[in-house]
Amino acid sequence: MSRIVYVNGAFVPEAEATVSVFDRGFLFADGVYEVTSVLSGKLLDFDGHARRLERSLAELDMPMPMTQDALLEVHRRLVAENGIEDGLVYLQVTRGAADRDFAYPPKDTPQTVVLFTQSKPGLADNPAAQTGLKIVTLPDLRWDRRDIKTVQLLYPSMGKMAAKAQGADDAWMVEDGVVTEGTSNNAYIVKDGTIVTRHLGNEILHGITRAAVLRFAQEAQMKVEERAFSVEEAQDADEAFVTSASAFVMPVVEIDGAALGNGTPGPIAKRLREIYLDESRKTAV
Amino acid sequence: MSRIVYVNGAFVPEAEATVSVFDRGFLFADGVYEVTSVLSGKLLDFDGHARRLERSLAELDMPMPMTQDALLEVHRRLVAENGIEDGLVYLQVTRGAADRDFAYPPKDTPQTVVLFTQSKPGLADNPAAQTGLKIVTLPDLRWDRRDIKTVQLLYPSMGKMAAKAQGADDAWMVEDGVVTEGTSNNAYIVKDGTIVTRHLGNEILHGITRAAVLRFAQEAQMKVEERAFSVEEAQDADEAFVTSASAFVMPVVEIDGAALGNGTPGPIAKRLREIYLDESRKTAV
Repeated sequence: MSRIVYVNGAFVPEAEATVSVFDRGFLFADGVYEVTSVLSGKLLDFDGHARRLERSLAELDMPMPMTQDALLEVHRRLVAENGIEDGLVYLQVTRGAADRDFAYPPKDTPQTVVLFTQSKPGLADNPAAQTGLKIVTLPDLRWDRRDIKTVQLLYPSMGKMAAKAQGADDAWMVEDGVVTEGTSNNAYIVKDGTIVTRHLGNEILHGITRAAVLRFAQEAQMKVEERAFSVEEAQDADEAFVTSASAFVMPVVEIDGAALGNGTPGPIAKRLREIYLDESRKTAV
Repeated sequence: MSRIVYVNGAFVPEAEATVSVFDRGFLFADGVYEVTSVLSGKLLDFDGHARRLERSLAELDMPMPMTQDALLEVHRRLVAENGIEDGLVYLQVTRGAADRDFAYPPKDTPQTVVLFTQSKPGLADNPAAQTGLKIVTLPDLRWDRRDIKTVQLLYPSMGKMAAKAQGADDAWMVEDGVVTEGTSNNAYIVKDGTIVTRHLGNEILHGITRAAVLRFAQEAQMKVEERAFSVEEAQDADEAFVTSASAFVMPVVEIDGAALGNGTPGPIAKRLREIYLDESRKTAV
């Protein structure tokens, strides 16, 4: 690997891509992030990610570190310099480096801005889309502002490991008897042709892919209900799936050991994946 | 400032103290920390902090990065090189740097170990101990494993800012109608001579200073109850205080605008502060 990474205005080899140990992202998890997919060298849903970044920052009383156009230029240059055909661009903004103090540093403290790419050849042809994911459920122990896309990702990371330890692919988190979302994706079930997914609120991330997929589903005359659902309701569903910027629409075939439908990806998940990929490629920049 | 900072085996000037942007502490808040006070050039409660570090790491399936003796040597060298008479040593251990993935990297990935000092002349003579702190309360929105001392400190940091915005010094967090703890300290009230502080559990940090203070209180024949208390009970208390490694025992004189007792530091808080400082100096290393 010899990626070029963006750090605070400079494009540097990854071995030189560092931040201060006093960075508040490192000391306080005082930062937010976005992940944008790249297909055929173009960025998917860039506008949506940039707008959500601005919202996350505003919730934490931070400004955008540069204009959306300048951000797009950095994304494009990294994609070009690293020859990314299919993959991801990761972006993180923190409140910057300052001597350690729970109180925020002065407003004029320069923010830290880091972007790097991950090459994922064949990202849109992930074989998991053919077999579907096995999901286990876990209590949702995260903080209560999951609508802010912060780097406080330790529990989702622990959840991914707990899922693997149980022979599953991923975990859905459960709070007050209902599913919130997956460790790094939004969760959906389908019953009698109706797509059900958790309504927006502070309890879940407002997925950019979620918004697009729900729009496409409605345009395709599919019925959508935005409401919470229980694990039991999910296990009794005809099919299920997750959405995220990097997994697009990914079928789920098993929840806590219970196979859904005939245990293979369902037709609505497959159809939505096709539509999402087709439509997103059309508007990629 | 021209501190010497410890980063992964090297003692470097602070301007050169960096970690990779791929460090999991930066990307996932996948790290834990400790803060040890220094008085007269000696470390307070070092054993307690080292043992809690080991426990935090174990809860996250990470080993100690070095022996406790080696850790003590690093602390002592930093105190000496930076001429710290009174101040703090901050220590952070993360799961190390690896290409971004929610799943943990291979077990042989080198952990990141960072230590730095903060000089705080007159730390034991903080004038706030004479006037006492004004506290406001906030809902506790943190994750549910506060017993693990992770760097997921964004909400406590937001809480400190919210307190300042209201003209207060700090915030106590409230969950299910009862106080959990302060943003970076344990919370206590005193009523009719009895000291009340939240019982241990996943809901609060298991304070090293808390353990010492409760031991000293019992040795001094003070009555201690470890149980949850409400904001109303706190406002009706005779006195209140907080404990932490860097604040020791710090009196609280106001909670959500209600003055406690006569609005000045109470006798039990003052006495415990004296005992804690005296006893801790005796065992400092």
